[in-house]
Amino acid sequence: MQTPWEYRYAHRMQKMGSSVIRELLKLTEQPDLISFGGGLPAPEVFPLAEFQEACNYVLSDHGAQALQYSTTEGYRPLREMIARHTARYTVPITPENILITSGSQQALDFIGRLFINRGDYVVVESPTYLGALQAWNAYGAQYISVPSDENGMIVDKLEEALRIGPKFIYVLPNFQNPSGSTLSLERRKRLVLLADQYGVPIIEDDPYGQLRYDGEHLPSVVYLDNHFRNDGNGEYSGNVIYLSTFSKLLAPGLRLAWVVAPPQVIRKLVMTKQAADLHTSSFNQHVAYEVAKGGFLDEHVKVIRATYKERRDVMLEMMDEMFPPEVRWAKPQGGMFLWGILPEHVDAAEVLTAAIERKVAFVPGAAFHPNGGGENTMRLNFSFSAPDTIREGITRLGTTLKEVLKKNGHKVSA
Amino acid sequence: MQTPWEYRYAHRMQKMGSSVIRELLKLTEQPDLISFGGGLPAPEVFPLAEFQEACNYVLSDHGAQALQYSTTEGYRPLREMIARHTARYTVPITPENILITSGSQQALDFIGRLFINRGDYVVVESPTYLGALQAWNAYGAQYISVPSDENGMIVDKLEEALRIGPKFIYVLPNFQNPSGSTLSLERRKRLVLLADQYGVPIIEDDPYGQLRYDGEHLPSVVYLDNHFRNDGNGEYSGNVIYLSTFSKLLAPGLRLAWVVAPPQVIRKLVMTKQAADLHTSSFNQHVAYEVAKGGFLDEHVKVIRATYKERRDVMLEMMDEMFPPEVRWAKPQGGMFLWGILPEHVDAAEVLTAAIERKVAFVPGAAFHPNGGGENTMRLNFSFSAPDTIREGITRLGTTLKEVLKKNGHKVSA
Repeated sequence: MQTPWEYRYAHRMQKMGSSVIRELLKLTEQPDLISFGGGLPAPEVFPLAEFQEACNYVLSDHGAQALQYSTTEGYRPLREMIARHTARYTVPITPENILITSGSQQALDFIGRLFINRGDYVVVESPTYLGALQAWNAYGAQYISVPSDENGMIVDKLEEALRIGPKFIYVLPNFQNPSGSTLSLERRKRLVLLADQYGVPIIEDDPYGQLRYDGEHLPSVVYLDNHFRNDGNGEYSGNVIYLSTFSKLLAPGLRLAWVVAPPQVIRKLVMTKQAADLHTSSFNQHVAYEVAKGGFLDEHVKVIRATYKERRDVMLEMMDEMFPPEVRWAKPQGGMFLWGILPEHVDAAEVLTAAIERKVAFVPGAAFHPNGGGENTMRLNFSFSAPDTIREGITRLGTTLKEVLKKNGHKVSA
Repeated sequence: MQTPWEYRYAHRMQKMGSSVIRELLKLTEQPDLISFGGGLPAPEVFPLAEFQEACNYVLSDHGAQALQYSTTEGYRPLREMIARHTARYTVPITPENILITSGSQQALDFIGRLFINRGDYVVVESPTYLGALQAWNAYGAQYISVPSDENGMIVDKLEEALRIGPKFIYVLPNFQNPSGSTLSLERRKRLVLLADQYGVPIIEDDPYGQLRYDGEHLPSVVYLDNHFRNDGNGEYSGNVIYLSTFSKLLAPGLRLAWVVAPPQVIRKLVMTKQAADLHTSSFNQHVAYEVAKGGFLDEHVKVIRATYKERRDVMLEMMDEMFPPEVRWAKPQGGMFLWGILPEHVDAAEVLTAAIERKVAFVPGAAFHPNGGGENTMRLNFSFSAPDTIREGITRLGTTLKEVLKKNGHKVSA
């Protein structure tokens, strides 16, 4: 007889669904379709020549080590480099504060595994990063959503959430995915103080921090927490776990990211990683180190910024021109995403269906809201498509939006 | 105030410990120490030139794709290649039967996540692979140990275990880690029939299948299961989930392995992987595909076999010569490990302490026994060290063993 597999699955699998976005990405693989759906970097900025040189060097000079099993914590020179960089710009740390992970998604998974008992509450912004919800659903998390606006999480509403007794607060302060919003300095300070007052840790997810196109760099939450605790002196032992990644600065196909945390938390995460996948590819860690070690990323990030700034500006211009005035959006200061808000009763999923017929796609915003709502929101990625493609795609989307709004009883100005 | 992190950790972390082996690997990083502890491939067999060529080709011809985000299932040409190979030698499958994972450890983790509710029973051989226990401890598994001998799991004792109602049976039929034993054909057939009779799935972990140095290749459990069900015809939909890896054939530093399972199980594992790390490095998948696609591995595996066979034989010869007769071991037909059995009351951990003083190391066997026992066993790796190093290391270990046995009241023949 056939094995009835579906009855063998563990309870935790009931809350696991496939990501709307990754399913959408499959749908959008048809030719001619312009997708603003994924969160992909521009392939034009991948430093191919530097990778090639690094691969050749690593294989000829460190092959035996780079292709072998290695330590769970990560390749030490890479951790030292990240520690030096972090110590210079953010908080004083050593390699013992760092774990290399196979992408930030893995860091989110490990944080779920380390902290979340079934039924535990986690404070998130609404909307928030879908990948975090996916990771933590497997551990039975419940979410307390704090609403956000153009300046990020509305911290005035945080205190009420903290009194529920959450395990931690999850926040993406810079150019948030999906909303593109940036948490203001005042709110960052307030967040650190409130988290301390209630004794609740903060997970700061910062994949886009260096991708700022306008305005002044704001200090990270981990920096403010450290400064608040000990004037920024001494070894880092604060209340924040900080995540960042090479996916946006080098290439996502390497699957390389890192966690900054107090050493005792890193040690627990190392045990988690041992059981989960032993270690991140030693070859990729060697290659990334070779590409980055001479300061290449400082120059390279300027190229990325210029590329994405242009694409953002083209998309904003075209939206101004092509979108009906009932649709609202803000100008993000960096990152990879624009966030559109439709009139309240218009369903972005309906817009998407019509858009795909016109060969353009985006992500409807509902999935980013763990406790419902947001059906009238949409996320548009501007980093992946070349400017001309953006022009054509936004033209198609503008036409679609006008049609759908008209069908929904809106007078649409031509 | 400092955040008291240790009170924030989830319940599942209480059963998580660091791997004895990985901690030992750190200890053995001192120079001059000869380690038979790890399960490392010989770096001499890494195909560096082929990797270099593949990296250059992938970056110059497929750079934009290989460095970008990709599908969770894995790089399609790589899955097609594995499917063709599996269909030719094992069971008729398509790419829909395959998930690429970041090493087999990740496959074990995902299987735990997919199937194990807290308290569920899992049938394992005793001794069994430590990494599987580590992975499944996080999900609250309990273990039913079935004893094994030189011909693998003693299947006569399996039926009693199956009546407890386990979630699945975990078995490493070829050159098992740690014991080096190979499950006999008769026992393989009996295992398939018993698992079917009780409706309990089998996880077949086969990292070393191609590393056979003597004797005839035995059909895999998944093959026998498929043959039993439908004479080996039609699409694979049996009762076995099969795991294998590129770690031993290409290089472990790539972190590339795969799962073969019915498509419905693969779809669930894909959801699990989405939440866990999105996908395995696209770059590494491209590179492995380029290295392997022209049939290179068929030739390369011969080099590996010749290298490891020599090392196994040198180690066996030296053990014959240097070990006291109270120590017993069998000759493994393949793989990477030898399994030593000391007199019953001698503790291998005590031997290790003495051995490290003499600059040689191995892994005491107790950790491979989930329900206790095996304190008088030891695992020796023969694949990593060059023959001369093996000679020196076994000489040191022989001296150590004689000393410890003498101290434990044994008459030791010179």
